[in-house]
Amino acid sequence: MNPAEIIRKKREGGKLNREEIGFLVNGYVAGTIPDYQMSAFMMSVYFRSMDFKETATLTDIMLHSGVVVDLSHIPGVKVDKHSTGGVGDKVSLILAPMVASCGVPVPMISGRGLGHTGGTLDKLESIPGFRTSLSLKEYQSVIEEIGTVMIGQTAEIAPADKKMYALRDVTGTVESIPLIAGSIMSKKLAEGIDSLVLDVKTGRGAFMQSEERAIELAHTLIEIGKRFGKKTIGFLTDMNQPLGCAVGNWLEVTECIDCLHGKDDSDLMEVTYVLGGTMLMLGKKVKTIEDGITRCKEAIRSGKAYEKFLQLVKRQGGDLSFIEHPERYPKSKYTAEIRSFSSGDLDNIDALEVGLVSVLIGAGRRKVEEAIDPKAGIILKKKVGDAVSHGDVLAVLHTDSKDVLETAAHRLGGAFAVATEPSIGQPLIKKMIDENGAHPWRGN
Amino acid sequence: MNPAEIIRKKREGGKLNREEIGFLVNGYVAGTIPDYQMSAFMMSVYFRSMDFKETATLTDIMLHSGVVVDLSHIPGVKVDKHSTGGVGDKVSLILAPMVASCGVPVPMISGRGLGHTGGTLDKLESIPGFRTSLSLKEYQSVIEEIGTVMIGQTAEIAPADKKMYALRDVTGTVESIPLIAGSIMSKKLAEGIDSLVLDVKTGRGAFMQSEERAIELAHTLIEIGKRFGKKTIGFLTDMNQPLGCAVGNWLEVTECIDCLHGKDDSDLMEVTYVLGGTMLMLGKKVKTIEDGITRCKEAIRSGKAYEKFLQLVKRQGGDLSFIEHPERYPKSKYTAEIRSFSSGDLDNIDALEVGLVSVLIGAGRRKVEEAIDPKAGIILKKKVGDAVSHGDVLAVLHTDSKDVLETAAHRLGGAFAVATEPSIGQPLIKKMIDENGAHPWRGN
Repeated sequence: MNPAEIIRKKREGGKLNREEIGFLVNGYVAGTIPDYQMSAFMMSVYFRSMDFKETATLTDIMLHSGVVVDLSHIPGVKVDKHSTGGVGDKVSLILAPMVASCGVPVPMISGRGLGHTGGTLDKLESIPGFRTSLSLKEYQSVIEEIGTVMIGQTAEIAPADKKMYALRDVTGTVESIPLIAGSIMSKKLAEGIDSLVLDVKTGRGAFMQSEERAIELAHTLIEIGKRFGKKTIGFLTDMNQPLGCAVGNWLEVTECIDCLHGKDDSDLMEVTYVLGGTMLMLGKKVKTIEDGITRCKEAIRSGKAYEKFLQLVKRQGGDLSFIEHPERYPKSKYTAEIRSFSSGDLDNIDALEVGLVSVLIGAGRRKVEEAIDPKAGIILKKKVGDAVSHGDVLAVLHTDSKDVLETAAHRLGGAFAVATEPSIGQPLIKKMIDENGAHPWRGN
Repeated sequence: MNPAEIIRKKREGGKLNREEIGFLVNGYVAGTIPDYQMSAFMMSVYFRSMDFKETATLTDIMLHSGVVVDLSHIPGVKVDKHSTGGVGDKVSLILAPMVASCGVPVPMISGRGLGHTGGTLDKLESIPGFRTSLSLKEYQSVIEEIGTVMIGQTAEIAPADKKMYALRDVTGTVESIPLIAGSIMSKKLAEGIDSLVLDVKTGRGAFMQSEERAIELAHTLIEIGKRFGKKTIGFLTDMNQPLGCAVGNWLEVTECIDCLHGKDDSDLMEVTYVLGGTMLMLGKKVKTIEDGITRCKEAIRSGKAYEKFLQLVKRQGGDLSFIEHPERYPKSKYTAEIRSFSSGDLDNIDALEVGLVSVLIGAGRRKVEEAIDPKAGIILKKKVGDAVSHGDVLAVLHTDSKDVLETAAHRLGGAFAVATEPSIGQPLIKKMIDENGAHPWRGN
C-alpha cells in the first residue's frame, strides 16, 4: 500500500477501511510511516472527519497497539470517569475515592495539563512523594487492595495514542472529533473498565467551545463505548467560568481536601456528585442516579471518602502529613489581590483567560517538557452570580515569578466582568447524554 | 512565533502575513521547522487555499530562498515556456531551439517525470552524453553562446521549492493551486527570464483534470508573473489523449527530430507553433502571435531550428551521431502490437492510462529515486478522429521487461475507444489566457 494514496483518499473525503487505517497507524508506531505522512493524514481527517465505522476502527487499532489490561478477576463493575478538560477541574481527586468508598472499583489513567487546562497527574504529583508512574502490575495491585488507583499512561498503554497525540499537539490537529475519540477511548478501553462516565466540557475554557460540537463528541464516545461493550453515559457541563475556587496544582489539592472534609456547597461538588451518582448506578450499587448522589453525599459526610483518599495517597507514596496539615506546604514568594472597581453582580469569569494566566505564573505548561511550580495558582474569591462591592477581593494570585506578577495580575482582573443588572447565568449541568440522545438534566 | 499557531490560523481559513509564511518556509529550509509541521501546513493550504497576496508572498519567499540568476547582460528579451505536464509532451525539445533560432533567448530549467507524466530532463538524458546538471556559471555561458540552454533545477535555485516539492509528493499535497503556483513561479523567476508562456494542460492526462481549475491556476500564474514584472501569457490545451505519437523518452526524442526535420502536420506541432509564436511576440521579434507562428514555421522549414538543436545537444555533451542516425540507438528486447477489434472512428485514447502503462514498462518512475529505461515506450499509430478498421495496429509497445509485457499490452489496448459514429472531439487549444482573462482561441 502507498501511504500518499491513503492520505489522498481521505483528503478527497473517501472512507478508509481497516487495512488502510491499520497500515498508517501500525506503521507509524513501528516507524515505517514517518511523522510527516501521519501529520498530513491527521490534517486530512481534521477537514474530512471520519464516519462512525472508521472512528471505531481507528480506536480499535490504537487500543491494540498496546496492552489491554484485564481486571476481570477483581469483583464488581469497574467504572471510570473521563473529562475533556477544563480550568480548575479537580473532580477526579474527590470522585475516585468517593466512589471507591461506596464499593465501586475506580481504575483511572489520567493525563497532564497542557495549554490553559490542568491535568490530574500534575495535581496528584504536587503532593510530595506521590508516584503516578506505576507499572501495570503495581496498577493492578493497588486497585485490588484499595479499590481505586490513579496513574499516568504507561508505555504499554496505547502507544499509538501517545505518539499521535504528541504529533497532533505540534501540528494543529488536536480539535478533530474522530482523533479525540480514538485518543480518549483507546486509553480508557485499555484500563480494564466495564463502564465509563464522561464529563464533556463546553464554553470558553473548554476545548470544544460550541455546545453542538461537544454533544457530537459525546455521542461518538458513547457509541464507541457501546461498540466495545462498555456502557457509557455523558454529561455536558459548563466551562465558561473555572470549576470550584482554586486553579493551580497544590491549591486545587487543598480545595479537594476541604470538599472531602464536607464542604459541599460548590459548583465543584454539584458536578462531582452527579458524576459519582452515575458511576454508582453504572456500578450496580444503586438503581438511579439520584440514589447514587445520596450515597455519595453520605460517603462525604461520614468521612469514608476522605479515608479512601488518605489510603490512596499513602499507597502511592504521598506524604500524608501535608494532607492532614495543608498549612505546612511551602508558600509562593509573591501574592497579589485582585480587587473590584465597581459594584454589582459578578457576571462572568473568563475560564480561558484564567487558565492562560495560571500558565503564565508557573502553574501550567505551554510545552510538554516544561516544568510546573506546584505552589503557583489562583484562588477565586467570588464566583459568577455573587454580589460584588467596590474594593472587594475577586481573586488572589500566588507565584514565585516576580517578572510576570504585574502582567498576570492585570490580566487576571480583566477576566472578571461585573454587571449592574442581575445576570441570567448558565446552568452548570446542561445535558445528560446516553445511547438514546441528549436529554435535559433534571433540576434545570 | 509558534509554528502550530500559524498552522491553526491557516486551518481556520485565516490570511497569513509575510512574517508568518517566511517563518515557516525559511525555517523549513534551515531545518528549524520539521517535515511534519510543513506537511500539516501544506495540507491546511490544500483545504483553505491562499489568496493572491499570500500566494505572491509565498512565491517571493521561495524564490529568495536561493540564487536569482541575472541574465540582463545578454541582449534581447529572454522568454521561457512552462507546461503543467502531460503524456507525450515533448514540446520543449522542439520549441527552445526553434524560438532561439529566431533570435529570442530561451533559458530553460526543467524537471523530471513523475507518476504518469514525463519530464524534459529524462527525454534529454536519453541522448547519450547529454548533461542536464550544469552549474549556474555554465548555464549562463551556454545561453550566451547559443541562445538557449536546458538544465535541471540546481541546488542554488529555489531550495525551498526542492524541499517542499519532495514532501508534497509523499504527503498528498500536490494538487493545491497556491503551492503549485509558488513552485512553478519561484523556479521560473529565478532563471533570469523577462517573459513567460504557459501551457496549462487539462483533461484525463493532466494534473488539473477540470478546465475550471486549470484556468484558475493559469490566472494565478499570470498575476504572479505580472507582480514580478514578467509578462505572462497562457494557453489552455487538451490533454485527454497523449500529445503527438511517441510516449517514452528516446522515442519522443526521435519524434522531435522528425518534427525539426519538417514533419509538422501533428497536434504536437500545432501546440508548439502557437507557443513559439507567442514567445516571439513576447520577445519583441514580431507584433502578433500569427506573425510569430509564420516565423517559427520558416525556422523549421529552413532547417535553422534543427541546426540550433544540434548546437544545443553538442554544447551540452550529447552524442550527435544518434541525432543524425536515430536508427543506431539500442532497441527494446520486446515489442507488442495492439490491434483494433472493431471498425469506426477512434473516439478516445486515455492519456492517463497510456502514461501509467508507460511507467509500468519502464519509461517512467513511480518514485523520485527509480531508474528509467530510455528505450522503453509506446508509439501511437492512430490518433483521435482517425478511421480504424478491424485488425489495424493502434499502437506498438517497446519494453525490456518480459514480466509486464502481457499486462501492459492489454491495458494499453483498453485505453483506446472506437466509436461507430463520428466523434465530435475536443479542440486542441481551448483558450488563451492573459491579464484580461480567458479568451477563445481563434480558429476554434
